[in-house]
Amino acid sequence: MAVAELSSSYQTRLIKPSQLLSLSSRLSNHRKFNLQCRPRTTPRGTGICCSVAPNEIQTPVAVPTGGQSTKPECYGVFCLTYDLKKEETTKSWKKMITIAISGAAGTISNHLLFKLASGVVFGPDQPIALKLLGSERSFEALEGVAMELEDSLYPLLREVSIGIDPYEVFLDAEWALLIGAKPRGPGMERADLLDINGKIYAEQGKALNAVASRNVKVIVVGNPCNTNALICLKNAPNIPTKNFHALTRLDENRAKCQLALKAGVFYDKVSNMTIWGNHSTTQVPDFLNARIDGVPVKEVIKDQKWLEEEFTDIVRKRGGVLIKKWGRSSAASTAVSIVDAIKSLVTPTPPGDWFSSGVYTDGNPYGIAEGLVFSMPCRSKGDGDYELVKDVIFDDYLRKRIKLSEEELLAEKRCTAHLTGEGIAVCDLPAGDTMLPGEM
Amino acid sequence: MAVAELSSSYQTRLIKPSQLLSLSSRLSNHRKFNLQCRPRTTPRGTGICCSVAPNEIQTPVAVPTGGQSTKPECYGVFCLTYDLKKEETTKSWKKMITIAISGAAGTISNHLLFKLASGVVFGPDQPIALKLLGSERSFEALEGVAMELEDSLYPLLREVSIGIDPYEVFLDAEWALLIGAKPRGPGMERADLLDINGKIYAEQGKALNAVASRNVKVIVVGNPCNTNALICLKNAPNIPTKNFHALTRLDENRAKCQLALKAGVFYDKVSNMTIWGNHSTTQVPDFLNARIDGVPVKEVIKDQKWLEEEFTDIVRKRGGVLIKKWGRSSAASTAVSIVDAIKSLVTPTPPGDWFSSGVYTDGNPYGIAEGLVFSMPCRSKGDGDYELVKDVIFDDYLRKRIKLSEEELLAEKRCTAHLTGEGIAVCDLPAGDTMLPGEM
Repeated sequence: MAVAELSSSYQTRLIKPSQLLSLSSRLSNHRKFNLQCRPRTTPRGTGICCSVAPNEIQTPVAVPTGGQSTKPECYGVFCLTYDLKKEETTKSWKKMITIAISGAAGTISNHLLFKLASGVVFGPDQPIALKLLGSERSFEALEGVAMELEDSLYPLLREVSIGIDPYEVFLDAEWALLIGAKPRGPGMERADLLDINGKIYAEQGKALNAVASRNVKVIVVGNPCNTNALICLKNAPNIPTKNFHALTRLDENRAKCQLALKAGVFYDKVSNMTIWGNHSTTQVPDFLNARIDGVPVKEVIKDQKWLEEEFTDIVRKRGGVLIKKWGRSSAASTAVSIVDAIKSLVTPTPPGDWFSSGVYTDGNPYGIAEGLVFSMPCRSKGDGDYELVKDVIFDDYLRKRIKLSEEELLAEKRCTAHLTGEGIAVCDLPAGDTMLPGEM
Repeated sequence: MAVAELSSSYQTRLIKPSQLLSLSSRLSNHRKFNLQCRPRTTPRGTGICCSVAPNEIQTPVAVPTGGQSTKPECYGVFCLTYDLKKEETTKSWKKMITIAISGAAGTISNHLLFKLASGVVFGPDQPIALKLLGSERSFEALEGVAMELEDSLYPLLREVSIGIDPYEVFLDAEWALLIGAKPRGPGMERADLLDINGKIYAEQGKALNAVASRNVKVIVVGNPCNTNALICLKNAPNIPTKNFHALTRLDENRAKCQLALKAGVFYDKVSNMTIWGNHSTTQVPDFLNARIDGVPVKEVIKDQKWLEEEFTDIVRKRGGVLIKKWGRSSAASTAVSIVDAIKSLVTPTPPGDWFSSGVYTDGNPYGIAEGLVFSMPCRSKGDGDYELVKDVIFDDYLRKRIKLSEEELLAEKRCTAHLTGEGIAVCDLPAGDTMLPGEM
């Protein structure tokens, strides 16, 4: 049975009308003064567990909690009922949007959530609801995050709820920022990591498919993010494939900064920066199409050897250098790059410029294999959607490098076939470790 | 010899004309492509070391590094020379301001720096320079922070420099956000903590006095913040005492949230919230003057027992509850409250409302002992300055509570007399531990 069929049968069978409650009725349904929220124990993992293909690794299929409450726990002051109608009139506020975040108790989220709540991402007239997904182990930390959000008094933040079941937390989500992933443990092979995190993203894809907004935008940050995004979208057949992104924006930002430094200009002078391919060491920061003050990089930086041999290396080793200095991974700048990625979709791209995002390759004009999530240059009208940029040029060097990243992603795809409904997984990953240092 | 005299004699004797270079000449004086900055070893602690009064504890007096370079190290892309004049014309940008931050490698700063750089604090037309003060031990972490700031591509962030000498880092600072402090070690008495951190703030006060902008605004976050701020201002006699603040804004924010929760309203309905006194467990969240939707709190929350017995306790225990849940202290919401504190000084206070800040008590209209840094209600025209609010009322309960906090601060002052030039320290601190839980 294909995943697509499985998922849609879930939807038919298990989604209750209570899950489709409108925002207004949900708003009137809060418990008051519930300062101490506890995780409810839901009968999870007790239901259907089918493998999608004959394979030695079984996909754990998350079962929606039928019949019971389908709302995550609201938190503290956010459990109160607010009449947003008044604000919409007096302050010209937009209708509230719902943003779900996985890995919400982690350090990246600890930066990101406060940016979302402050209004710098979606604008000063956009009230938001934050739905935080954690694990049983992190539930108390989620409460701590919710308490700090309370204490921040952000006027635009109108709802905060926390939960451990994606079928609850993703309900009606219009944005899903999927940050949670297992880090690689000692002695763990890349194939193991692909499988462990792939299963998480398969489950979250199914949950999004079942309960999220039909036009939910999904940004996958948890690594390996391209293949996680692919698995997620394959498990969410009722959501447009165009809505799924793998985050390569931090790579783009780092590449821009390094070109600026080499050229001796401020980083705001660098434009048209593409990261091609996988968010791994095979990524291709494209100095052929990038521009400095509107001029092709190669006309400004005449050091071809540096561009071809050092530049890419600096960009992909940046996270590793940082973790050595700082002792921890780059949570703050990752959160900034997630904000950048969202803003690039909700504000029009400046004329002539573009941004990079890992998106689905079907119909791409570059000759990249279809059926992958591959970082490519995009433009947006600011409506949440994007188009691939057509006016890019290639040379042999660029083509060859892109090919290597494509091959890696095709291998990752074969290695996770059991999670995408495409048959038996065969793990013939290229030799060598291509995980980005600092992101193990 | 009084500290005031000591400090001014420093200024006369040791400040070189090179320290008074204008911004524009400093801008043209950057090293290029200096990606790997190293701390320079400066001859510190080798110079004058005088005690300000006969006392068993000697004040370590920081000696400005005469003759040598007086600039902290610039970092990476921020070492480039940018022509801000053009931006000032084409984008209507203001003249760049310099913000110094101590404890810059810590977790609170890790949240705060990115907010400052993003423009949400000083506005989208205000370019900024960040000067980060750390220690030799944290120098590599400072580099890591600077790298993440580079990778964030904030257009308003034009200079980042890092250093370990406050006489270098505070040069020309227009804002000094003093977050760094030693945490209390095992078995350490409060008197020890007052002394250890007091010495840090005495040194930083001297440095500010010597090299910062003559109108630098100083916000002290490192605990015990009221007394640290007092020590700092006493060591900076050439800077107006009104320019020194001890942060009690997180307490204010928490108090607002708890009143909202109790009243069943959103937190943006709570106004006129004063925290009186010390940022310790003797703090007084004032429910007598606070308002909910414009109505006195006591007319909305009729539960006098809750207000008198539970409310204050919830507010002051909040940090402790949070640290238990979250496993770490509330860095994110502390950073938010620092932003709130700055914004309250650079934007006009809404009519009829006020905010709390720990400020110098000389000339206060409430009968609070002079010569302390005490949290009181303030209003600002948005010019960086403030006035104390006159139209507040008192009752016996409030007076009694304020008195307790005043007594504590007077005792802390006596215990740090050797650091303020006021004679021999006598540590008769009130019995019991009044440090806020979660801030040990």
